[in-house]
Amino acid sequence: MAQTPSIPKGVRDFSPIEMNKRNYIFDTLKDTFKLFGYEQIETPSMENLSTLMGKYGEEGDKLLFKILNSGDFAKGVIAADFEDENSNFLSAKICEKGLRYDLTVPFARYVVMHQNEIVFPFKRFQVQQVWRADRPQKGRYREFYQCDVDVIGSNSLINEAGLVQIVETVYKKLNINVTVKINNRKILTGIAELIDEANKIVDITVAIDKLDKIGLDGVLKELKEREISDEKIEILKPIILLSGDNELKLNTLEKIFSLSEIGQKGISEMRTIFNYLKDMEIAIPCELDLTLARGLNYYTGAIFEVKSNDVQIGSITGGGRYDDLTGIFGLKNISGVGISFGADRIYDVMEQLNLFPETVTSSSKALFVNFGEKEEAWNLPFIAKLRDAGIAVEMYPEAAKMKKQLTYANAKKIPFAILVGEEEVNSNQFTIKEMESGEQWKVGFEELKIKLQSHEK
Amino acid sequence: MAQTPSIPKGVRDFSPIEMNKRNYIFDTLKDTFKLFGYEQIETPSMENLSTLMGKYGEEGDKLLFKILNSGDFAKGVIAADFEDENSNFLSAKICEKGLRYDLTVPFARYVVMHQNEIVFPFKRFQVQQVWRADRPQKGRYREFYQCDVDVIGSNSLINEAGLVQIVETVYKKLNINVTVKINNRKILTGIAELIDEANKIVDITVAIDKLDKIGLDGVLKELKEREISDEKIEILKPIILLSGDNELKLNTLEKIFSLSEIGQKGISEMRTIFNYLKDMEIAIPCELDLTLARGLNYYTGAIFEVKSNDVQIGSITGGGRYDDLTGIFGLKNISGVGISFGADRIYDVMEQLNLFPETVTSSSKALFVNFGEKEEAWNLPFIAKLRDAGIAVEMYPEAAKMKKQLTYANAKKIPFAILVGEEEVNSNQFTIKEMESGEQWKVGFEELKIKLQSHEK
Repeated sequence: MAQTPSIPKGVRDFSPIEMNKRNYIFDTLKDTFKLFGYEQIETPSMENLSTLMGKYGEEGDKLLFKILNSGDFAKGVIAADFEDENSNFLSAKICEKGLRYDLTVPFARYVVMHQNEIVFPFKRFQVQQVWRADRPQKGRYREFYQCDVDVIGSNSLINEAGLVQIVETVYKKLNINVTVKINNRKILTGIAELIDEANKIVDITVAIDKLDKIGLDGVLKELKEREISDEKIEILKPIILLSGDNELKLNTLEKIFSLSEIGQKGISEMRTIFNYLKDMEIAIPCELDLTLARGLNYYTGAIFEVKSNDVQIGSITGGGRYDDLTGIFGLKNISGVGISFGADRIYDVMEQLNLFPETVTSSSKALFVNFGEKEEAWNLPFIAKLRDAGIAVEMYPEAAKMKKQLTYANAKKIPFAILVGEEEVNSNQFTIKEMESGEQWKVGFEELKIKLQSHEK
Repeated sequence: MAQTPSIPKGVRDFSPIEMNKRNYIFDTLKDTFKLFGYEQIETPSMENLSTLMGKYGEEGDKLLFKILNSGDFAKGVIAADFEDENSNFLSAKICEKGLRYDLTVPFARYVVMHQNEIVFPFKRFQVQQVWRADRPQKGRYREFYQCDVDVIGSNSLINEAGLVQIVETVYKKLNINVTVKINNRKILTGIAELIDEANKIVDITVAIDKLDKIGLDGVLKELKEREISDEKIEILKPIILLSGDNELKLNTLEKIFSLSEIGQKGISEMRTIFNYLKDMEIAIPCELDLTLARGLNYYTGAIFEVKSNDVQIGSITGGGRYDDLTGIFGLKNISGVGISFGADRIYDVMEQLNLFPETVTSSSKALFVNFGEKEEAWNLPFIAKLRDAGIAVEMYPEAAKMKKQLTYANAKKIPFAILVGEEEVNSNQFTIKEMESGEQWKVGFEELKIKLQSHEK
């Protein structure tokens, strides 16, 4: 009956040490979201496939994990279903539910279903797993957490600035140096309007993004290869060469956009947001970056990305303004703005820079060494008293060899061992052994309590 | 394109208020587990079906949610596969993975896979969702959290007592009065041996359990109906009528079990556990209850169940000792003991008894009313300072009508509104409005900070 167990590709077990580090990140995020008045919701892991399908493009539909109907799922399936080359038709017959692919579509579904209970603006955060049947590779998993914070039902651009303030607070707490890149979908639309090439806006931003690497000539060559006419490239030149601080960039763009209403609107939005950031005394660098073009079809206003200054890794946070998220479920004209923190990438950055506080990985404050029945009984009420004081302590469950017990303490990174043998019982004392230094000394109970309590978390 | 959204049967959305209450329970559990030196792990939602199948009985296999293979899942399926009445064969061809059904089998799998990294005894807790394709009904969901705490790799009975101590600590914190019922699988085996009816032990405990309701005659009648001979019923009589405190019961059983080695072992284990509970100064009632017979095939020693004293509901916590959990995956002779807290039932008990602290449901401490651009800008640095001091505050994102803003504060149960109009800006003051009483008064910033800080959490 015995089998060698394994787990599916692309999913992970998390050990206690990994969990402590992950929780350090999740707790920092959740505590910060709450500090800003955001409230947590949870949605089910399974959604109806009718809710999920068609929301993530054709590629996304393929990446949905589908759940086989319970019971006699094959009833009504005919041979032709299986022989059909396109198994979508078959899967629709045998699967009604799927695992959620992101937190955004379930959130939109939640808002529509609960619109009568919700008082808008609705500031919600959500920290839950999502599943994607993607090809697993380094840093890409089939099950991972998303940490989303969104406000829905308010058009005010103070919300955009507030999200940058959340970014600043989170990364200050985590000790990660970051830069916030900001763009605006309306500015990108303005650029596309200028040259009448709405479909090539991604090509253009990708090319402009290479300016540092390949120089102006390289960029112009690439634009030409993407079949943008010389005339249009000439119009794009000042945009490609845009430089200076945010204000200078916006002033330059204003001139370029003299005829584009939507471009002007984008500039005005950015000015308002930068003003709010100034009022909020934001200290982290926030740069207008026209090459930022994430999720174009989705966002309608500001777009954000946050990069670590010290580690080469993709963006660790991103998001933007969307004007019609809930429209797909029949609730029109509700605008929202939100950002998502990438816990796995943040984890990698913190590991690489060694930013996790050492104490994050420790469990109990002290291990009571077990010397046998009599000492066990003597210790138990004291252990209970320490726990009543909120101090995590434990006793080794059997009178094993001292070496084994201390090995256990070391493995769990428990900073102190407490030794109570016959001598200590008789003198009503406790021997503290500091695991790292090996030093040991005797104390009374109150002193023991203070020592463990004052040991920094 | 618009569709009226819905969610699958048996799964739930959780609103901010529900989340706050649920987190109050989860945090109490996790904090207590840590206080006792237990460490958290997480396992993936998806396991290979080969890991899950056959572990929960035939009925359990049917209740597993299976995940359709990605890509061309129907390849290799032939007509005969789905024309077969038993769709198990077909589902095995098109599904390799399933959602976890409980936390116990994944834990066993984890221990076996990570045995070389783990230092035993391994004290772990796990708070994660499980999925069962059960028929949904009141209190029974298809997705729910389990909160398991187990120690594996130690035979010492101090672990059993330690779990009772965890139960006491958790329910003291949650303010729920409970009784712990304890039994021992070895005692039940002893009883079965006495009358040579190993298969009828569940029937017997079910019948004995009705003593209070149907009296001795009723119980005897029921045993007869279950085809237990008069002679054997005579042997069972002193067990049915067992009464008195734990010690008295154990003394009586000891005489009855004079010839049953395993029965004697069970009694001796219970004595040791009760002694530990005494040494630990456990104050909640712990009763030896022979009618307790949960998961017989699984447990090998002590069995626990915890009941609320004030609400009629099934057990809210349960567990026991198992001697061969990891054997199914090839790692023999590792004994463990654990308990599982039922978060949904605990939630129901707390709702019924109105035990959630009022402040659990509040979010921010204060809402800054928005009077317009100028006041907004004046307030922002103060808001940042309050957050730096760890106080959750927010500003309404636009200068909406006062009534709308205060309705928002009420709906989110925010205790204070802060009003800063032109007058306050000029005098460098803040008007505090206590939402419940409607009282309002003016203060300086330091006073405001202290007022919000001292408002009890």
